Amino acid sequence: MTAELGIGWIGTGVMGGPMAGHLLDGGHRLAVFNRTRSRAVELVKRGARWSDSPAEAARDADVVCTMLGTPADVREVVLGGGRVLESMRPGAVLIDFTTSEPSLAAEIHADAARRGVDSLDAPVSGGDVGARNATLAIMVGGDPDAFVRARPVLELLGRTVELQGGAGAGQHTKMTNQLAIAAGMIGVCEALIYAHRAGLDLERTLSTISGGAAGSWSLANYGPRLLRGDLEPGFKVDHFIKDLGIALAEARRMGVSLPGAALAEQLYVAVSSQGMGQKGTQSLAVALARLSQVDWPAT
Amino acid sequence: MTAELGIGWIGTGVMGGPMAGHLLDGGHRLAVFNRTRSRAVELVKRGARWSDSPAEAARDADVVCTMLGTPADVREVVLGGGRVLESMRPGAVLIDFTTSEPSLAAEIHADAARRGVDSLDAPVSGGDVGARNATLAIMVGGDPDAFVRARPVLELLGRTVELQGGAGAGQHTKMTNQLAIAAGMIGVCEALIYAHRAGLDLERTLSTISGGAAGSWSLANYGPRLLRGDLEPGFKVDHFIKDLGIALAEARRMGVSLPGAALAEQLYVAVSSQGMGQKGTQSLAVALARLSQVDWPAT
Repeated sequence: MTAELGIGWIGTGVMGGPMAGHLLDGGHRLAVFNRTRSRAVELVKRGARWSDSPAEAARDADVVCTMLGTPADVREVVLGGGRVLESMRPGAVLIDFTTSEPSLAAEIHADAARRGVDSLDAPVSGGDVGARNATLAIMVGGDPDAFVRARPVLELLGRTVELQGGAGAGQHTKMTNQLAIAAGMIGVCEALIYAHRAGLDLERTLSTISGGAAGSWSLANYGPRLLRGDLEPGFKVDHFIKDLGIALAEARRMGVSLPGAALAEQLYVAVSSQGMGQKGTQSLAVALARLSQVDWPAT
Repeated sequence: MTAELGIGWIGTGVMGGPMAGHLLDGGHRLAVFNRTRSRAVELVKRGARWSDSPAEAARDADVVCTMLGTPADVREVVLGGGRVLESMRPGAVLIDFTTSEPSLAAEIHADAARRGVDSLDAPVSGGDVGARNATLAIMVGGDPDAFVRARPVLELLGRTVELQGGAGAGQHTKMTNQLAIAAGMIGVCEALIYAHRAGLDLERTLSTISGGAAGSWSLANYGPRLLRGDLEPGFKVDHFIKDLGIALAEARRMGVSLPGAALAEQLYVAVSSQGMGQKGTQSLAVALARLSQVDWPAT
Protein backbone atom coordinates (compact mmCIF):
# COMPACT_ATOMS: atom_id res chain seq x y z
CA MET A 1 0.00 0.00 0.00
CA THR A 2 1.11 3.55 -0.62
CA ALA A 3 1.49 6.02 2.22
CA GLU A 4 -1.65 7.90 1.24
CA LEU A 5 -4.69 5.71 0.73
CA GLY A 6 -8.16 6.34 -0.58
CA ILE A 7 -10.47 5.09 2.14
CA GLY A 8 -14.24 4.68 2.05
CA TRP A 9 -15.78 4.88 5.51
CA ILE A 10 -19.38 3.81 6.14
CA GLY A 11 -20.89 4.45 9.55
CA THR A 12 -19.83 7.58 11.42
CA GLY A 13 -21.60 7.13 14.75
CA VAL A 14 -20.23 7.28 18.27
CA MET A 15 -17.53 4.74 17.40
CA GLY A 16 -17.06 5.18 13.66
CA GLY A 17 -16.91 8.99 13.75
CA PRO A 18 -13.77 9.35 15.86
CA MET A 19 -12.18 6.30 14.19
CA ALA A 20 -12.61 7.85 10.74
CA GLY A 21 -11.18 11.08 12.11
CA HIS A 22 -7.94 9.30 13.05
CA LEU A 23 -7.55 8.17 9.42
CA LEU A 24 -7.91 11.77 8.25
CA ASP A 25 -5.30 12.76 10.82
CA GLY A 26 -3.11 9.97 9.45
CA GLY A 27 -3.05 11.71 6.06
CA HIS A 28 -5.46 9.53 4.12
CA ARG A 29 -8.18 10.64 1.68
CA LEU A 30 -11.62 9.79 3.06
CA ALA A 31 -15.01 9.32 1.40
CA VAL A 32 -17.72 8.97 4.03
CA PHE A 33 -21.31 7.80 4.14
CA ASN A 34 -23.67 7.63 7.09
CA ARG A 35 -27.41 6.92 7.25
CA THR A 36 -27.86 10.10 9.27
CA ARG A 37 -25.90 12.68 7.25
CA SER A 38 -25.63 15.21 10.09
CA ARG A 39 -23.30 12.88 11.96
CA ALA A 40 -20.76 13.07 9.15
CA VAL A 41 -20.68 16.89 8.95
CA GLU A 42 -17.75 17.22 11.32
CA LEU A 43 -15.64 14.84 9.20
CA VAL A 44 -16.58 16.68 5.99
CA LYS A 45 -15.50 19.97 7.58
CA ARG A 46 -12.17 18.33 8.31
CA GLY A 47 -11.67 17.35 4.65
CA ALA A 48 -13.62 14.12 4.07
CA ARG A 49 -15.69 13.86 0.89
CA TRP A 50 -19.40 13.12 1.40
CA SER A 51 -20.78 10.16 -0.56
CA ASP A 52 -24.47 9.81 -1.34
CA SER A 53 -24.45 6.04 -0.90
CA PRO A 54 -22.33 3.24 0.57
CA ALA A 55 -21.56 2.11 -2.99
CA GLU A 56 -20.21 5.56 -3.89
CA ALA A 57 -17.99 5.60 -0.79
CA ALA A 58 -16.66 2.17 -1.71
CA ARG A 59 -15.99 2.84 -5.40
CA ASP A 60 -12.29 3.30 -6.27
CA ALA A 61 -11.24 3.06 -2.61
CA ASP A 62 -8.10 1.13 -1.63
CA VAL A 63 -9.68 0.28 1.71
CA VAL A 64 -13.35 0.26 2.67
CA CYS A 65 -14.26 0.36 6.36
CA THR A 66 -17.67 -0.33 7.87
CA MET A 67 -18.72 0.40 11.46
CA LEU A 68 -22.42 -0.35 11.67
CA GLY A 69 -25.01 -1.35 14.25
CA THR A 70 -26.04 -4.95 13.74
CA PRO A 71 -25.24 -8.00 11.59
CA ALA A 72 -28.42 -7.21 9.61
CA ASP A 73 -27.00 -3.74 8.82
CA VAL A 74 -23.72 -5.32 7.69
CA ARG A 75 -25.53 -7.78 5.43
CA GLU A 76 -27.66 -5.03 3.89
CA VAL A 77 -24.80 -2.56 3.37
CA VAL A 78 -22.08 -4.99 2.26
CA LEU A 79 -23.95 -7.77 0.44
CA GLY A 80 -27.42 -6.27 -0.12
CA GLY A 81 -28.85 -2.99 -1.33
CA GLY A 82 -25.85 -1.01 -0.12
CA ARG A 83 -23.83 -2.77 -2.84
CA VAL A 84 -20.47 -2.13 -1.16
CA LEU A 85 -18.80 -5.38 -2.16
CA GLU A 86 -19.89 -5.23 -5.81
CA SER A 87 -18.69 -1.61 -6.00
CA MET A 88 -15.20 -2.35 -4.73
CA ARG A 89 -12.32 -2.64 -7.15
CA PRO A 90 -10.33 -5.90 -7.26
CA GLY A 91 -7.32 -5.75 -4.96
CA ALA A 92 -9.02 -3.51 -2.43
CA VAL A 93 -9.55 -4.51 1.22
CA LEU A 94 -12.83 -4.46 3.12
CA ILE A 95 -12.56 -4.08 6.92
CA ASP A 96 -15.71 -4.57 8.98
CA PHE A 97 -15.29 -3.16 12.49
CA THR A 98 -18.88 -3.98 13.50
CA THR A 99 -19.32 -6.60 16.20
CA SER A 100 -21.18 -9.07 14.03
CA GLU A 101 -21.75 -12.75 13.28
CA PRO A 102 -18.66 -14.91 12.71
CA SER A 103 -20.60 -16.87 10.11
CA LEU A 104 -21.53 -13.66 8.25
CA ALA A 105 -17.85 -12.67 8.28
CA ALA A 106 -17.01 -16.01 6.64
CA GLU A 107 -19.78 -15.51 4.06
CA ILE A 108 -18.53 -12.01 3.18
CA HIS A 109 -14.96 -13.29 2.96
CA ALA A 110 -15.97 -16.00 0.48
CA ASP A 111 -18.02 -13.58 -1.62
CA ALA A 112 -15.19 -11.04 -1.57
CA ALA A 113 -12.66 -13.66 -2.64
CA ARG A 114 -14.76 -14.45 -5.72
CA ARG A 115 -14.50 -10.77 -6.70
CA GLY A 116 -10.76 -10.54 -6.03
CA VAL A 117 -11.39 -8.43 -2.93
CA ASP A 118 -9.82 -9.09 0.49
CA SER A 119 -11.96 -8.90 3.60
CA LEU A 120 -11.17 -8.73 7.29
CA ASP A 121 -13.50 -8.91 10.28
CA ALA A 122 -12.12 -6.56 12.90
CA PRO A 123 -14.41 -6.00 15.90
CA VAL A 124 -13.01 -3.77 18.59
CA SER A 125 -13.15 -3.38 22.32
CA GLY A 126 -12.47 -0.29 24.36
CA GLY A 127 -15.71 1.61 23.80
CA ASP A 128 -16.17 5.22 22.76
CA VAL A 129 -13.24 6.31 24.91
CA GLY A 130 -10.99 3.86 23.06
CA ALA A 131 -12.34 5.07 19.73
CA ARG A 132 -11.64 8.73 20.59
CA ASN A 133 -8.14 8.02 21.97
CA ALA A 134 -7.19 5.42 19.34
CA THR A 135 -6.55 2.91 22.12
CA LEU A 136 -8.93 0.22 20.91
CA ALA A 137 -8.12 -3.48 20.98
CA ILE A 138 -8.78 -4.75 17.45
CA MET A 139 -9.42 -8.48 16.97
CA VAL A 140 -8.86 -9.39 13.35
CA GLY A 141 -9.91 -12.40 11.31
CA GLY A 142 -8.88 -13.04 7.72
CA ASP A 143 -5.91 -13.85 5.48
CA PRO A 144 -2.41 -12.98 6.73
CA ASP A 145 -1.45 -10.99 3.60
CA ALA A 146 -4.61 -8.87 3.80
CA PHE A 147 -3.85 -8.29 7.49
CA VAL A 148 -0.32 -7.12 6.68
CA ARG A 149 -1.68 -4.71 4.06
CA ALA A 150 -4.38 -3.35 6.38
CA ARG A 151 -2.17 -3.09 9.43
CA PRO A 152 -0.99 0.54 8.87
CA VAL A 153 -4.65 1.60 8.82
CA LEU A 154 -5.58 -0.50 11.86
CA GLU A 155 -2.68 0.85 13.85
CA LEU A 156 -4.02 4.38 13.49
CA LEU A 157 -7.09 3.21 15.41
CA GLY A 158 -5.96 0.86 18.12
CA ARG A 159 -3.25 0.08 20.60
CA THR A 160 -3.54 -3.70 20.23
CA VAL A 161 -4.00 -5.05 16.73
CA GLU A 162 -3.82 -8.82 16.37
CA LEU A 163 -4.65 -11.39 13.74
CA GLN A 164 -6.62 -14.07 15.57
CA GLY A 165 -7.06 -16.51 12.68
CA GLY A 166 -9.01 -16.90 9.43
CA ALA A 167 -12.26 -15.19 8.42
CA GLY A 168 -14.60 -14.92 11.43
CA ALA A 169 -11.83 -15.42 14.00
CA GLY A 170 -11.93 -11.74 14.96
CA GLN A 171 -15.67 -12.02 15.65
CA HIS A 172 -15.22 -15.29 17.53
CA THR A 173 -12.55 -13.68 19.72
CA LYS A 174 -14.87 -10.78 20.47
CA MET A 175 -17.61 -13.26 21.39
CA THR A 176 -15.19 -15.11 23.68
CA ASN A 177 -14.47 -11.77 25.34
CA GLN A 178 -18.17 -10.98 25.80
CA LEU A 179 -18.91 -14.45 27.20
CA ALA A 180 -16.24 -14.06 29.87
CA ILE A 181 -17.68 -10.65 30.80
CA ALA A 182 -21.34 -11.73 30.82
CA ALA A 183 -21.36 -14.30 33.61
CA GLY A 184 -18.69 -12.28 35.39
CA MET A 185 -21.07 -9.31 35.60
CA ILE A 186 -23.67 -11.54 37.28
CA GLY A 187 -21.04 -12.44 39.88
CA VAL A 188 -20.08 -8.82 40.50
CA CYS A 189 -23.69 -7.65 40.85
CA GLU A 190 -24.89 -10.56 42.98
CA ALA A 191 -21.89 -10.21 45.29
CA LEU A 192 -22.54 -6.51 45.86
CA ILE A 193 -26.28 -6.99 46.44
CA TYR A 194 -25.57 -9.78 48.93
CA ALA A 195 -22.99 -7.60 50.70
CA HIS A 196 -25.38 -4.65 50.89
CA ARG A 197 -28.25 -6.78 52.22
CA ALA A 198 -25.88 -8.35 54.78
CA GLY A 199 -25.16 -4.86 56.11
CA LEU A 200 -21.49 -4.80 55.13
CA ASP A 201 -19.64 -1.57 54.47
CA LEU A 202 -19.54 -1.74 50.68
CA GLU A 203 -16.44 0.44 50.21
CA ARG A 204 -14.48 -1.74 52.60
CA THR A 205 -15.84 -4.97 51.16
CA LEU A 206 -14.97 -3.90 47.62
CA SER A 207 -11.48 -2.93 48.71
CA THR A 208 -11.02 -6.25 50.54
CA ILE A 209 -12.16 -8.58 47.76
CA SER A 210 -10.81 -6.65 44.75
CA GLY A 211 -7.19 -7.58 45.40
CA GLY A 212 -7.71 -11.34 45.58
CA ALA A 213 -9.23 -14.25 43.69
CA ALA A 214 -12.51 -12.35 43.20
CA GLY A 215 -10.71 -9.50 41.45
CA SER A 216 -11.68 -8.53 37.91
CA TRP A 217 -11.75 -5.57 35.56
CA SER A 218 -15.55 -5.49 35.97
CA LEU A 219 -15.37 -5.43 39.77
CA ALA A 220 -12.68 -2.75 39.76
CA ASN A 221 -14.49 -0.56 37.21
CA TYR A 222 -18.19 -1.11 37.85
CA GLY A 223 -18.05 -1.72 41.62
CA PRO A 224 -17.16 1.89 42.47
CA ARG A 225 -19.69 3.22 39.95
CA LEU A 226 -22.47 1.14 41.52
CA LEU A 227 -21.48 2.35 44.99
CA ARG A 228 -22.21 5.92 43.88
CA GLY A 229 -25.32 4.89 41.89
CA ASP A 230 -23.70 5.74 38.55
CA LEU A 231 -25.37 3.83 35.71
CA GLU A 232 -23.92 5.86 32.85
CA PRO A 233 -22.78 3.62 30.03
CA GLY A 234 -19.27 2.42 29.48
CA PHE A 235 -20.99 -0.22 27.40
CA LYS A 236 -24.76 -0.08 26.83
CA VAL A 237 -27.13 -2.83 27.93
CA ASP A 238 -28.85 -3.04 24.53
CA HIS A 239 -25.51 -3.47 22.77
CA PHE A 240 -24.58 -6.23 25.19
CA ILE A 241 -27.89 -8.00 24.52
CA LYS A 242 -27.08 -7.84 20.80
CA ASP A 243 -23.62 -9.33 21.36
CA LEU A 244 -24.89 -12.09 23.63
CA GLY A 245 -27.56 -12.92 21.07
CA ILE A 246 -24.84 -13.38 18.45
CA ALA A 247 -22.68 -15.46 20.79
CA LEU A 248 -25.56 -17.73 21.79
CA ALA A 249 -26.68 -18.17 18.16
CA GLU A 250 -23.14 -19.09 17.08
CA ALA A 251 -22.74 -21.42 20.05
CA ARG A 252 -26.06 -23.09 19.19
CA ARG A 253 -24.89 -23.50 15.60
CA MET A 254 -21.68 -25.15 16.88
CA GLY A 255 -23.60 -27.33 19.34
CA VAL A 256 -22.23 -25.66 22.45
CA SER A 257 -24.55 -25.19 25.44
CA LEU A 258 -23.75 -22.07 27.50
CA PRO A 259 -26.05 -21.97 30.53
CA GLY A 260 -24.31 -19.00 32.15
CA ALA A 261 -24.43 -16.85 29.03
CA ALA A 262 -28.07 -17.79 28.50
CA LEU A 263 -28.89 -16.67 32.04
CA ALA A 264 -26.95 -13.45 31.53
CA GLU A 265 -28.78 -12.72 28.28
CA GLN A 266 -32.16 -13.27 29.92
CA LEU A 267 -31.25 -11.08 32.88
CA TYR A 268 -30.09 -8.31 30.53
CA VAL A 269 -33.38 -8.57 28.65
CA ALA A 270 -34.99 -7.82 32.01
CA VAL A 271 -32.62 -4.87 32.58
CA SER A 272 -33.68 -3.45 29.21
CA SER A 273 -37.37 -4.11 29.92
CA GLN A 274 -36.96 -2.11 33.12
CA GLY A 275 -36.04 0.87 30.97
CA MET A 276 -32.26 0.68 31.26
CA GLY A 277 -31.36 -0.42 27.71
CA GLN A 278 -29.35 2.75 27.14
CA LYS A 279 -27.66 2.58 30.54
CA GLY A 280 -24.41 0.79 31.27
CA THR A 281 -24.08 -2.96 31.81
CA GLN A 282 -23.59 -2.37 35.56
CA SER A 283 -27.37 -1.69 35.61
CA LEU A 284 -27.76 -5.44 36.03
CA ALA A 285 -27.31 -4.75 39.75
CA VAL A 286 -30.46 -2.63 39.74
CA ALA A 287 -32.53 -5.33 38.04
CA LEU A 288 -31.23 -8.03 40.40
CA ALA A 289 -31.89 -5.81 43.41
CA ARG A 290 -35.46 -5.23 42.21
CA LEU A 291 -35.87 -8.99 41.76
CA SER A 292 -35.51 -9.36 45.54
CA GLN A 293 -36.95 -5.95 46.47
CA VAL A 294 -33.54 -4.92 47.81
CA ASP A 295 -33.36 -1.15 48.14
CA TRP A 296 -29.99 -0.70 46.40
CA PRO A 297 -28.35 0.75 44.36
CA ALA A 298 -30.40 3.92 44.65
CA THR A 299 -31.30 5.34 41.23
CA MET B 1 -2.14 -8.94 75.60
CA THR B 2 1.34 -9.95 76.68
CA ALA B 3 4.02 -10.71 74.13
CA GLU B 4 3.85 -14.44 74.80
CA LEU B 5 0.35 -15.88 74.71
CA GLY B 6 -1.11 -19.25 75.59
CA ILE B 7 -2.97 -20.32 72.46
CA GLY B 8 -5.27 -23.29 71.98
CA TRP B 9 -5.41 -24.45 68.36
CA ILE B 10 -8.08 -26.86 67.17
CA GLY B 11 -7.83 -28.20 63.63
CA THR B 12 -4.37 -28.81 62.19
CA GLY B 13 -5.18 -29.83 58.61
CA VAL B 14 -3.84 -28.47 55.32
CA MET B 15 -4.70 -24.89 56.38
CA GLY B 16 -4.64 -25.05 60.17
CA GLY B 17 -1.33 -26.94 60.42
CA PRO B 18 0.90 -24.31 58.80
CA MET B 19 -1.09 -21.48 60.42
CA ALA B 20 -0.50 -22.93 63.90
CA GLY B 21 3.18 -23.33 62.98
CA HIS B 22 3.48 -19.57 62.39
CA LEU B 23 2.19 -18.90 65.92
CA LEU B 24 4.88 -21.24 67.33
CA ASP B 25 7.43 -19.35 65.24
CA GLY B 26 6.03 -16.12 66.69
CA GLY B 27 7.05 -17.26 70.17
CA HIS B 28 3.66 -18.30 71.55
CA ARG B 29 2.84 -21.38 73.66
CA LEU B 30 0.55 -23.72 71.74
CA ALA B 31 -1.84 -26.45 72.89
CA VAL B 32 -3.15 -28.35 69.86
CA PHE B 33 -5.99 -30.75 69.18
CA ASN B 34 -6.93 -32.42 65.91
CA ARG B 35 -9.45 -35.17 65.17
CA THR B 36 -6.71 -37.10 63.37
CA ARG B 37 -3.83 -36.96 65.84
CA SER B 38 -1.13 -37.89 63.29
CA ARG B 39 -1.62 -34.52 61.58
CA ALA B 40 -0.53 -32.70 64.73
CA VAL B 41 2.68 -34.68 65.24
CA GLU B 42 4.83 -32.20 63.35
CA LEU B 43 3.61 -29.31 65.54
CA VAL B 44 4.20 -31.33 68.74
CA LYS B 45 7.77 -32.04 67.58
CA ARG B 46 8.22 -28.29 67.20
CA GLY B 47 7.11 -27.65 70.78
CA ALA B 48 3.30 -27.61 70.81
CA ARG B 49 1.56 -29.47 73.65
CA TRP B 50 -0.90 -32.18 72.57
CA SER B 51 -4.39 -31.93 74.07
CA ASP B 52 -6.72 -34.92 74.27
CA SER B 53 -9.82 -32.86 73.54
CA PRO B 54 -10.89 -29.48 72.16
CA ALA B 55 -11.95 -28.51 75.70
CA GLU B 56 -8.47 -29.27 77.04
CA ALA B 57 -6.84 -27.18 74.33
CA ALA B 58 -9.19 -24.30 75.14
CA ARG B 59 -8.79 -24.37 78.93
CA ASP B 60 -6.63 -21.54 80.36
CA ALA B 61 -5.74 -20.25 76.87
CA ASP B 62 -5.60 -16.51 76.19
CA VAL B 63 -6.66 -17.14 72.60
CA VAL B 64 -8.45 -20.16 71.15
CA CYS B 65 -8.29 -20.70 67.38
CA THR B 66 -10.44 -23.08 65.35
CA MET B 67 -9.85 -24.08 61.74
CA LEU B 68 -12.37 -26.78 60.93
CA GLY B 69 -14.19 -28.25 57.93
CA THR B 70 -17.83 -27.23 58.01
CA PRO B 71 -20.30 -25.12 60.01
CA ALA B 72 -21.55 -28.37 61.58
CA ASP B 73 -18.01 -29.07 62.82
CA VAL B 74 -17.80 -25.56 64.27
CA ARG B 75 -21.14 -25.94 66.05
CA GLU B 76 -20.16 -29.32 67.50
CA VAL B 77 -16.66 -28.26 68.61
CA VAL B 78 -17.46 -24.77 69.90
CA LEU B 79 -21.04 -25.00 71.20
CA GLY B 80 -21.65 -28.77 71.37
CA GLY B 81 -19.80 -31.82 72.64
CA GLY B 82 -16.39 -30.24 72.01
CA ARG B 83 -17.19 -27.82 74.86
CA VAL B 84 -14.70 -25.19 73.70
CA LEU B 85 -16.71 -22.14 74.67
CA GLU B 86 -17.68 -23.42 78.14
CA SER B 87 -14.02 -24.33 78.80
CA MET B 88 -12.65 -20.90 77.97
CA ARG B 89 -11.76 -18.49 80.73
CA PRO B 90 -13.50 -15.08 80.87
CA GLY B 91 -11.47 -12.46 79.04
CA ALA B 92 -10.11 -14.92 76.49
CA VAL B 93 -10.71 -14.52 72.74
CA LEU B 94 -12.09 -17.19 70.41
CA ILE B 95 -11.09 -16.85 66.74
CA ASP B 96 -12.84 -19.09 64.20
CA PHE B 97 -10.94 -19.22 60.90
CA THR B 98 -13.34 -21.75 59.35
CA THR B 99 -15.38 -20.50 56.40
CA SER B 100 -18.75 -20.92 58.08
CA GLU B 101 -22.25 -19.50 58.45
CA PRO B 102 -22.55 -15.80 59.29
CA SER B 103 -25.58 -16.59 61.44
CA LEU B 104 -23.62 -19.24 63.39
CA ALA B 105 -20.88 -16.67 63.96
CA ALA B 106 -23.49 -14.31 65.42
CA GLU B 107 -24.87 -17.10 67.62
CA ILE B 108 -21.40 -17.98 68.94
CA HIS B 109 -20.67 -14.29 69.54
CA ALA B 110 -23.82 -13.91 71.64
CA ASP B 111 -23.14 -17.08 73.63
CA ALA B 112 -19.53 -16.05 74.18
CA ALA B 113 -20.57 -12.60 75.38
CA ARG B 114 -22.78 -14.17 78.05
CA ARG B 115 -19.68 -15.99 79.35
CA GLY B 116 -17.46 -12.91 79.25
CA VAL B 117 -15.55 -14.32 76.27
CA ASP B 118 -14.82 -12.39 73.07
CA SER B 119 -15.30 -14.06 69.71
CA LEU B 120 -14.23 -13.18 66.20
CA ASP B 121 -15.17 -14.82 62.90
CA ALA B 122 -12.10 -14.70 60.68
CA PRO B 123 -12.38 -16.71 57.47
CA VAL B 124 -9.39 -16.49 55.18
CA SER B 125 -8.60 -16.52 51.51
CA GLY B 126 -5.33 -17.42 49.85
CA GLY B 127 -5.49 -21.21 50.08
CA ASP B 128 -2.83 -23.61 51.34
CA VAL B 129 -0.10 -21.51 49.71
CA GLY B 130 -1.27 -18.46 51.66
CA ALA B 131 -1.42 -20.52 54.86
CA ARG B 132 2.16 -21.78 54.38
CA ASN B 133 3.56 -18.37 53.47
CA ALA B 134 1.49 -16.40 55.99
CA THR B 135 0.10 -14.31 53.14
CA LEU B 136 -3.59 -14.98 53.79
CA ALA B 137 -6.26 -12.32 53.56
CA ILE B 138 -8.19 -12.49 56.82
CA MET B 139 -11.74 -11.08 56.91
CA VAL B 140 -12.73 -10.41 60.48
CA GLY B 141 -16.11 -9.86 62.12
CA GLY B 142 -16.63 -8.93 65.77
CA ASP B 143 -16.09 -6.18 68.33
CA PRO B 144 -13.38 -3.58 67.66
CA ASP B 145 -11.65 -4.10 71.03
CA ALA B 146 -11.46 -7.86 70.55
CA PHE B 147 -10.04 -7.25 67.08
CA VAL B 148 -7.36 -4.94 68.49
CA ARG B 149 -6.40 -7.57 71.05
CA ALA B 150 -6.31 -10.40 68.48
CA ARG B 151 -4.52 -8.42 65.82
CA PRO B 152 -0.93 -9.39 66.81
CA VAL B 153 -1.93 -13.06 66.42
CA LEU B 154 -3.74 -12.48 63.14
CA GLU B 155 -0.81 -10.58 61.70
CA LEU B 156 1.41 -13.62 62.12
CA LEU B 157 -0.89 -15.46 59.70
CA GLY B 158 -1.92 -13.04 57.01
CA ARG B 159 -0.81 -10.13 54.89
CA THR B 160 -4.19 -8.41 54.92
CA VAL B 161 -6.07 -8.35 58.20
CA GLU B 162 -9.22 -6.23 58.29
CA LEU B 163 -12.18 -5.77 60.56
CA GLN B 164 -15.21 -5.87 58.27
CA GLY B 165 -17.89 -5.17 60.86
CA GLY B 166 -19.69 -6.87 63.76
CA ALA B 167 -20.09 -10.60 64.42
CA GLY B 168 -20.63 -12.48 61.14
CA ALA B 169 -19.25 -9.68 58.95
CA GLY B 170 -16.06 -11.65 58.28
CA GLN B 171 -18.13 -14.58 57.05
CA HIS B 172 -20.40 -12.31 55.00
CA THR B 173 -17.35 -10.74 53.36
CA LYS B 174 -15.99 -14.19 52.50
CA MET B 175 -19.38 -15.13 51.00
CA THR B 176 -19.35 -11.90 48.95
CA ASN B 177 -15.93 -12.94 47.68
CA GLN B 178 -17.12 -16.45 46.76
CA LEU B 179 -20.22 -15.11 45.00
CA ALA B 180 -18.12 -12.87 42.77
CA ILE B 181 -15.87 -15.82 41.93
CA ALA B 182 -18.68 -18.34 41.30
CA ALA B 183 -20.44 -16.76 38.34
CA GLY B 184 -17.09 -15.45 37.12
CA MET B 185 -15.81 -19.01 36.80
CA ILE B 186 -18.79 -19.88 34.60
CA GLY B 187 -17.81 -16.99 32.34
CA VAL B 188 -14.17 -18.04 32.15
CA CYS B 189 -15.01 -21.69 31.38
CA GLU B 190 -17.78 -20.97 28.88
CA ALA B 191 -15.60 -18.46 27.06
CA LEU B 192 -12.74 -20.94 26.69
CA ILE B 193 -15.00 -23.78 25.55
CA TYR B 194 -16.62 -21.51 22.98
CA ALA B 195 -13.20 -20.36 21.77
CA HIS B 196 -11.93 -23.92 21.47
CA ARG B 197 -15.03 -25.08 19.60
CA ALA B 198 -14.76 -22.06 17.27
CA GLY B 199 -11.25 -23.18 16.34
CA LEU B 200 -9.44 -20.21 17.84
CA ASP B 201 -5.83 -20.40 19.01
CA LEU B 202 -6.47 -20.54 22.75
CA GLU B 203 -3.10 -19.12 23.84
CA ARG B 204 -3.57 -16.12 21.58
CA THR B 205 -7.21 -15.67 22.56
CA LEU B 206 -6.36 -15.78 26.24
CA SER B 207 -3.59 -13.27 25.77
CA THR B 208 -5.87 -10.96 23.75
CA ILE B 209 -8.83 -10.91 26.14
CA SER B 210 -6.94 -11.04 29.47
CA GLY B 211 -5.75 -7.44 29.26
CA GLY B 212 -9.15 -5.86 28.70
CA ALA B 213 -12.66 -5.76 30.13
CA ALA B 214 -12.83 -9.58 30.30
CA GLY B 215 -9.74 -9.71 32.51
CA SER B 216 -9.95 -11.32 35.93
CA TRP B 217 -7.82 -13.15 38.48
CA SER B 218 -9.66 -16.35 37.54
CA LEU B 219 -8.98 -15.94 33.82
CA ALA B 220 -5.32 -15.11 34.43
CA ASN B 221 -4.79 -17.99 36.85
CA TYR B 222 -7.07 -20.78 35.64
CA GLY B 223 -6.98 -20.04 31.90
CA PRO B 224 -3.35 -21.12 31.48
CA ARG B 225 -3.89 -24.18 33.71
CA LEU B 226 -6.86 -25.28 31.60
CA LEU B 227 -4.83 -24.83 28.41
CA ARG B 228 -2.38 -27.43 29.70
CA GLY B 229 -5.14 -29.66 31.13
CA ASP B 230 -4.06 -29.00 34.72
CA LEU B 231 -6.94 -29.61 37.13
CA GLU B 232 -4.87 -29.71 40.33
CA PRO B 233 -6.58 -27.76 43.09
CA GLY B 234 -5.84 -24.22 44.03
CA PHE B 235 -9.28 -24.43 45.62
CA LYS B 236 -11.20 -27.72 45.68
CA VAL B 237 -14.59 -28.18 44.03
CA ASP B 238 -16.15 -29.79 47.13
CA HIS B 239 -15.03 -26.88 49.30
CA PHE B 240 -16.52 -24.44 46.82
CA ILE B 241 -19.83 -26.34 46.88
CA LYS B 242 -19.80 -26.05 50.67
CA ASP B 243 -19.18 -22.28 50.50
CA LEU B 244 -21.85 -21.71 47.85
CA GLY B 245 -24.30 -23.72 49.93
CA ILE B 246 -23.63 -21.37 52.87
CA ALA B 247 -23.94 -18.27 50.69
CA LEU B 248 -27.21 -19.42 49.13
CA ALA B 249 -28.67 -20.40 52.51
CA GLU B 250 -27.74 -17.02 54.01
CA ALA B 251 -29.09 -15.20 50.96
CA ARG B 252 -32.34 -17.16 51.21
CA ARG B 253 -32.58 -16.25 54.90
CA MET B 254 -32.12 -12.57 53.95
CA GLY B 255 -34.63 -12.85 51.08
CA VAL B 256 -32.07 -12.32 48.33
CA SER B 257 -32.44 -14.30 45.09
CA LEU B 258 -29.11 -15.13 43.40
CA PRO B 259 -29.79 -16.89 40.10
CA GLY B 260 -26.15 -16.88 38.98
CA ALA B 261 -24.84 -18.35 42.22
CA ALA B 262 -27.59 -20.97 42.14
CA LEU B 263 -26.57 -21.98 38.62
CA ALA B 264 -22.91 -22.10 39.66
CA GLU B 265 -23.71 -24.27 42.65
CA GLN B 266 -25.71 -26.70 40.51
CA LEU B 267 -22.96 -26.88 37.90
CA TYR B 268 -20.36 -27.55 40.60
CA VAL B 269 -22.55 -30.34 41.97
CA ALA B 270 -22.27 -31.84 38.48
CA VAL B 271 -18.48 -31.37 38.50
CA SER B 272 -18.31 -33.27 41.79
CA SER B 273 -20.68 -35.99 40.51
CA GLN B 274 -18.33 -36.44 37.56
CA GLY B 275 -15.63 -37.43 40.06
CA MET B 276 -13.81 -34.10 40.30
CA GLY B 277 -14.78 -33.05 43.83
CA GLN B 278 -11.15 -33.07 44.96
CA LYS B 279 -9.91 -31.30 41.81
CA GLY B 280 -9.64 -27.54 41.41
CA THR B 281 -12.55 -25.24 40.62
CA GLN B 282 -11.25 -24.85 37.05
CA SER B 283 -12.65 -28.38 36.50
CA LEU B 284 -15.95 -26.68 35.73
CA ALA B 285 -14.59 -26.37 32.18
CA VAL B 286 -14.46 -30.16 31.90
CA ALA B 287 -18.04 -30.59 33.08
CA LEU B 288 -19.30 -27.88 30.71
CA ALA B 289 -17.35 -29.40 27.83
CA ARG B 290 -18.89 -32.81 28.54
CA LEU B 291 -22.33 -31.18 28.63
CA SER B 292 -21.91 -30.37 24.94
CA GLN B 293 -19.65 -33.32 24.07
CA VAL B 294 -16.84 -30.89 23.32
CA ASP B 295 -13.52 -32.70 23.33
CA TRP B 296 -11.64 -30.25 25.55
CA PRO B 297 -9.87 -29.79 27.89
CA ALA B 298 -8.19 -33.17 27.58
CA THR B 299 -8.02 -34.98 30.93
